[in-house]
Amino acid sequence: MKKLAILGSTGSIGTQTLDVVRAHPEAFEVEGLAAGNNIELLMQQVLEFKPSKISVGSKESAEQIKQQLPAHIQVFYGEQGLIEIAAGTDADTVVTAVMGSMGLPSTLAAIDAGKTIGLANKETLVTAGHLVTARARQKGVQLLPIDSEHSALFQCLNGEPRERIHQLTLTASGGSFRDRTREQLKHVTVADALKHPNWSMGSKITIDSATMANKGLEVIEAHWLFDMPYDQISVLLHPESIIHSFVEFVDTSIIAQLGNPDMRVPIQYALTYPDRQQAPSSRLSLAQIGQLNFREMDYVRFPCLSMAFEAGRLGGTAPTVFNAANEIAVSRFLNGEIPFLLIEDIIADALQQHEVIANPELEVIYATDAQTRARASAFSVL
Amino acid sequence: MKKLAILGSTGSIGTQTLDVVRAHPEAFEVEGLAAGNNIELLMQQVLEFKPSKISVGSKESAEQIKQQLPAHIQVFYGEQGLIEIAAGTDADTVVTAVMGSMGLPSTLAAIDAGKTIGLANKETLVTAGHLVTARARQKGVQLLPIDSEHSALFQCLNGEPRERIHQLTLTASGGSFRDRTREQLKHVTVADALKHPNWSMGSKITIDSATMANKGLEVIEAHWLFDMPYDQISVLLHPESIIHSFVEFVDTSIIAQLGNPDMRVPIQYALTYPDRQQAPSSRLSLAQIGQLNFREMDYVRFPCLSMAFEAGRLGGTAPTVFNAANEIAVSRFLNGEIPFLLIEDIIADALQQHEVIANPELEVIYATDAQTRARASAFSVL
Repeated sequence: MKKLAILGSTGSIGTQTLDVVRAHPEAFEVEGLAAGNNIELLMQQVLEFKPSKISVGSKESAEQIKQQLPAHIQVFYGEQGLIEIAAGTDADTVVTAVMGSMGLPSTLAAIDAGKTIGLANKETLVTAGHLVTARARQKGVQLLPIDSEHSALFQCLNGEPRERIHQLTLTASGGSFRDRTREQLKHVTVADALKHPNWSMGSKITIDSATMANKGLEVIEAHWLFDMPYDQISVLLHPESIIHSFVEFVDTSIIAQLGNPDMRVPIQYALTYPDRQQAPSSRLSLAQIGQLNFREMDYVRFPCLSMAFEAGRLGGTAPTVFNAANEIAVSRFLNGEIPFLLIEDIIADALQQHEVIANPELEVIYATDAQTRARASAFSVL
Repeated sequence: MKKLAILGSTGSIGTQTLDVVRAHPEAFEVEGLAAGNNIELLMQQVLEFKPSKISVGSKESAEQIKQQLPAHIQVFYGEQGLIEIAAGTDADTVVTAVMGSMGLPSTLAAIDAGKTIGLANKETLVTAGHLVTARARQKGVQLLPIDSEHSALFQCLNGEPRERIHQLTLTASGGSFRDRTREQLKHVTVADALKHPNWSMGSKITIDSATMANKGLEVIEAHWLFDMPYDQISVLLHPESIIHSFVEFVDTSIIAQLGNPDMRVPIQYALTYPDRQQAPSSRLSLAQIGQLNFREMDYVRFPCLSMAFEAGRLGGTAPTVFNAANEIAVSRFLNGEIPFLLIEDIIADALQQHEVIANPELEVIYATDAQTRARASAFSVL
């Protein structure tokens, strides 16, 4: 019986993690759940999965939910609450599925507490990859990827040594706007952007897929997870999202992981690793799909990806800037404040004005993150 | 330094094995070479790779070649010569690349001598899979596949346990006649049949690809190599031969091995396993290929494949009959004696008249093989 804590239980990854738990009641027990403001769904989850500790976004929500729950369930809130669920339960494995760089402190707390990490929050590695991976090594903690691309790479590597890898290739569907020109992108709406062709995901990551910033974050994540130089990480356009990513070895042999787009497969793999179990997912029929297509990534069409590579190569605080600027820009786009293409401009502006600090400590990262958010929030074309 | 003996050194797999050796002079030493009648090429190989023992097809060839070689190179011939190269050298690894079921005695001898087997002779496992695999287990000898499909499956499995496999899928290009109807197959020539669209191979296996008998042999080989029931082995048409085969696990995750069609990659993997080294092969660009296609296997169009599954499921001597009948039929087609479609009829006739003997000993297998060859040689439509 594996004991789990889930940070971000009411989001897309959180609910799908609970789907996996539901499919294997004999294998998993839920010790802790942390959510933000979706109290109604959290209540249902608490009643179904009976965690001993939960956390919500605010003090008010905590007080409200406490009255409706049996007294033995401890209720926490805010950043400290998240850390309590990450580090203060009997869980062996913590699924980190909160959104954005706010996932960092709780992920670090879980690592410090010796928990195996099911890593769904890529911003953690992007923002502080050197600190997170060093801390995980030091504590002997495994970072098991939940992102479909990184789970694919992890499955393809399957213990083969790093020095035998020629290249990691992340596939990219191209997102909701893959067939539009840059001219056509000028006037797209939030609703358009939220229609991802293959994957059912949260709204932040769906926008990130449309700008290809998501693939950029994944490139940086892959750099840290697999200790790979950026020159050995590439991105390939693959509209069908069937090959989730692949590894090319020095002998020219390529090992790829394939499947229908269903996040429950990589989630479950992180939870059952190194074992595999039946998944609540449909089997892929390549004959039925008939055809897989591939084309070179277009870095002019998708400047966010170039900027991510650039930020990754610069290292230090540059990826923190890339990520923070992107988070604010996407949130402003989702709020209807800015047009779609301004997301790129906000990131470019933030990177351009930033003086990179090498090997930043956590405080420097937090400060850079805050400064970048302020600048990105104030950015205006006028 | 790994020491090698190569059975069938002048054939397609043999020469490509020596290509791999040539690319890694620091890693491999050739202890023994066995060939048939291509004395000229064998002489070149002997001068280049300096084995201590060689073998040729006939006594006459042996005497002829002996005069041209330094006295310290021992020369053998015939079936006993093949066995001497398989078992009587200092080699750690024996590449079994002779054609057809004549590879069986020497493969067994190599196993008995404790050699690691680089298995390129699939007929060995088809004809006597239960004996070969039992003997290998007993002697603690590894059977490393060299066939591209089986190497692919082996790489995809990479140590994952058998009970977590849902299905093995062998891909099939469809061979030289994949786009012809059965009506059009009636009058195809030997020259037509020898034009394989993707792979450069020997003539027997190229004809076997056109009839899909080759895929049938591979299904039976996969059954024995990976201890998989036939219900968990499937075949998928994939004209480009880029995905060489794949494994689907119980969790719906598929791991596939890809590459340009180049036999030197699986050959080298068998020789360097579990390590990988730079290969003398070109890297695959999926962007350049652009598209991969898949369709269901058509068992009506390719009855040899159905018959192979049938023979495999019957077990006992049935696969021996399938293989022997096919070997004779292909040889008769290559000699211009029979039309292409008669290959199927010869196999069907042989299987139909045969009474299967379960768990046959080697003598029974040899007798069945001989009887089937006689019947297949005599088969006539008149």
